[in-house]
Amino acid sequence: MNKETLSGYKGDALQALKKAGAEIGDILRVTKDDRTYEGILIPRSENGNHKHIVLKMRNGYNVGVQITPTTKIERIGVGAKPTFQPPPLPKQKENLPKVAILSTGGTIASRVDYRTGGVRPALTANDLYSVVPELADIAVIDAEIVFSLFSENITPKHWTEISKNVAKHIEKGKSGIVIAHGTDTLGYTAAALSFALQNLPVPVVLVGSQRSADRPSSDAATNLLGAVQAAATAPFAEVVVCMHESISDEAIVFHRGTKARKCHTSRRDAFKSINALPVARLRDGKLSMLVEDYNKRESNRKLVLKPDFDEKVALVKFYPGMNPKTIDWHVENGYKGIVLEGTGLGHVGNHLFPAVRKAIEQNVIVAMASQCIWGRLGMTVYDTGRDLLAMGVVPLDDMLAETALVKLMWVLGQTKNTDEAKRLLKTNIAHEFSPCSMYEEEKQYDD
Amino acid sequence: MNKETLSGYKGDALQALKKAGAEIGDILRVTKDDRTYEGILIPRSENGNHKHIVLKMRNGYNVGVQITPTTKIERIGVGAKPTFQPPPLPKQKENLPKVAILSTGGTIASRVDYRTGGVRPALTANDLYSVVPELADIAVIDAEIVFSLFSENITPKHWTEISKNVAKHIEKGKSGIVIAHGTDTLGYTAAALSFALQNLPVPVVLVGSQRSADRPSSDAATNLLGAVQAAATAPFAEVVVCMHESISDEAIVFHRGTKARKCHTSRRDAFKSINALPVARLRDGKLSMLVEDYNKRESNRKLVLKPDFDEKVALVKFYPGMNPKTIDWHVENGYKGIVLEGTGLGHVGNHLFPAVRKAIEQNVIVAMASQCIWGRLGMTVYDTGRDLLAMGVVPLDDMLAETALVKLMWVLGQTKNTDEAKRLLKTNIAHEFSPCSMYEEEKQYDD
Repeated sequence: MNKETLSGYKGDALQALKKAGAEIGDILRVTKDDRTYEGILIPRSENGNHKHIVLKMRNGYNVGVQITPTTKIERIGVGAKPTFQPPPLPKQKENLPKVAILSTGGTIASRVDYRTGGVRPALTANDLYSVVPELADIAVIDAEIVFSLFSENITPKHWTEISKNVAKHIEKGKSGIVIAHGTDTLGYTAAALSFALQNLPVPVVLVGSQRSADRPSSDAATNLLGAVQAAATAPFAEVVVCMHESISDEAIVFHRGTKARKCHTSRRDAFKSINALPVARLRDGKLSMLVEDYNKRESNRKLVLKPDFDEKVALVKFYPGMNPKTIDWHVENGYKGIVLEGTGLGHVGNHLFPAVRKAIEQNVIVAMASQCIWGRLGMTVYDTGRDLLAMGVVPLDDMLAETALVKLMWVLGQTKNTDEAKRLLKTNIAHEFSPCSMYEEEKQYDD
Repeated sequence: MNKETLSGYKGDALQALKKAGAEIGDILRVTKDDRTYEGILIPRSENGNHKHIVLKMRNGYNVGVQITPTTKIERIGVGAKPTFQPPPLPKQKENLPKVAILSTGGTIASRVDYRTGGVRPALTANDLYSVVPELADIAVIDAEIVFSLFSENITPKHWTEISKNVAKHIEKGKSGIVIAHGTDTLGYTAAALSFALQNLPVPVVLVGSQRSADRPSSDAATNLLGAVQAAATAPFAEVVVCMHESISDEAIVFHRGTKARKCHTSRRDAFKSINALPVARLRDGKLSMLVEDYNKRESNRKLVLKPDFDEKVALVKFYPGMNPKTIDWHVENGYKGIVLEGTGLGHVGNHLFPAVRKAIEQNVIVAMASQCIWGRLGMTVYDTGRDLLAMGVVPLDDMLAETALVKLMWVLGQTKNTDEAKRLLKTNIAHEFSPCSMYEEEKQYDD
């Protein structure tokens, strides 16, 4: 039994499958305690543990079943072995816009994996045309695998790599760039690209999906089509996140990269624009702008690439009983910036004040965002906020905590001068601050 | 100039006010750079810094103005000096239910402060009847100041104290308990009381307000009236959070203590029930239940008080580029539990795996909640989740991260046995887990 027939399995799971004579693609019946699972054995990815086997059930869901000594595995059918046969290239319509699709991994890429050949980790233009043939009517696709990662494994170094890759394709004259990305940290990456890619001539559209395409409820193809259409033809030239607007397939929205947050673990409309409207909506094939203050597409504009991030920045969420030494630890370990995710209008318990003051005295930039998520800080309303301001804490108004983290990493990648860094942090670069009156119910707190 | 006339001011602010001959209650015109503020000088609370003075503007807002060497202060009028004159006690209707109002501080208590005499920090029954006279028609109030804190300064020790205080009043035969609390950490305290006060005979209603009552848009009186009405007469006997349902005054809702989260920095409907319906709604004076699975009021039921919390528990929010040594630090510093606020279905980057494994090997309970906020974990769907489960990470399904922190503190206050603690952590004690089918769009991931 060679490696490919049970690709990705190891340890107990591998032994149990070998004992049952099972191979990838076989239909298995697995009985465990009083439950029975029937489905097609699918390959595992490289980091798989040794305890689970994964079946694709008839309803389209993948289920991980933990193997115990009493688990019984029967091979009840032989499935089609995954083979990779590239489809013929569709007839290219050379007068169409050219769009690059950069794959970084995630559910939206995994769709293509399974359909085209088991563990094949990502997409080529041919793969894409074969699974979403409508793409050939919208754009000429140039597909590139940047890497193949679950997005929880994407770090600031990857943001740099993606940014440079986008710049390369813009340099080549693409009409727009689509980036396929896992949804887990898609919001963080979108914020990162919003700061790294300035003065954009064309749209940069991050796209994910919440369900792989082998599920009946998949959003992968709809989102990808929407992303490519926007990249090819949308009037805006900004970094956006393209996902379902609601749980129906009716509309796709484009959230600003600095304002997009994953707010649901599994729904297709997991992403929301926080304290802002989405930039645009695509419905019935027609894209309409929802905001007026957007950067317009202008292919002659010269991209300014600023891809550096400093990882010595932490996001620290405040909670009751939090130990102030958590802050000290970051300072002692060379952190240059700390974003506090405070409560309400921008508060932390006053037992943290000495640690915050010490951090600032040691030239660490301490900034404040709110764990409420929605709304705006108001640090002059109560004494706690005023005291923190007096210490030098930088209030980040209505900026998302996740965007604040990314921005502070980016700011400290641009300059090591603390005053200049604070100035940059407070400068509205990519709509990370919304105008004050826009989403507030009432007049805001002011000083 | 004695201490009371400029109560709470110190340093530069005090000097500047003295120089202008200003006293609390005076109408001041403050000119700074090119802006001018006019308003009544109001007192500061004890922790005030020395740089700001606070004016109540004509529109009802309090504004903090930082004093710089060029700031000009003019006294343009003499306001009414705050005096405290207790109103006559209203005629008590002794056949009404008896409700305790325990004040812990916060905006809802500060209302009473200003109206009744400057920095007077909290409420007596008389204060309450004088500012919300309608209370006398609903219940006989027994008001007690437990402490007077901005809620960001409330710690697990205070949760214990509040719990014991509630128990004392239930022992005395109250029909219900209202707890006035700052909104910043109201959700954490509500979760804490939900675990500490088991087998409740009567309702325990936490109430806050987002605007102090001296503002035109205040929600303080409406919320307090609703809270007292529920405490006096509602059919449920659970720990709930009472706040506005929307930005209008139309309805008040009662969120379950384990499911309530502050999701907006300033709106009156800041609190939302996450992955659950609110327990009840009060509209036009009528309370209607929104759920069926609630604990019914039964005055003969014997409260079980379990007020202990272990503070050696941390909430750690994952982010790209996070240093695994953050986890090591908690283990090395004697933490017994860590709630990871992971991404999506319950993930962290695989560079954290060795640190997580080491923590678990050293008997630290590592639990997972999602930073998405809405939705449910699905840790068997991807390899990352399966690997974390295989290490022994405890998945907390649809539990709020904040509730998870509080519950793990509470669990480790009940037992030091790790297996027993994990069992308790996974047991649904106060509706912190919602039934699986309730708010999901589709069938859930399963193993």
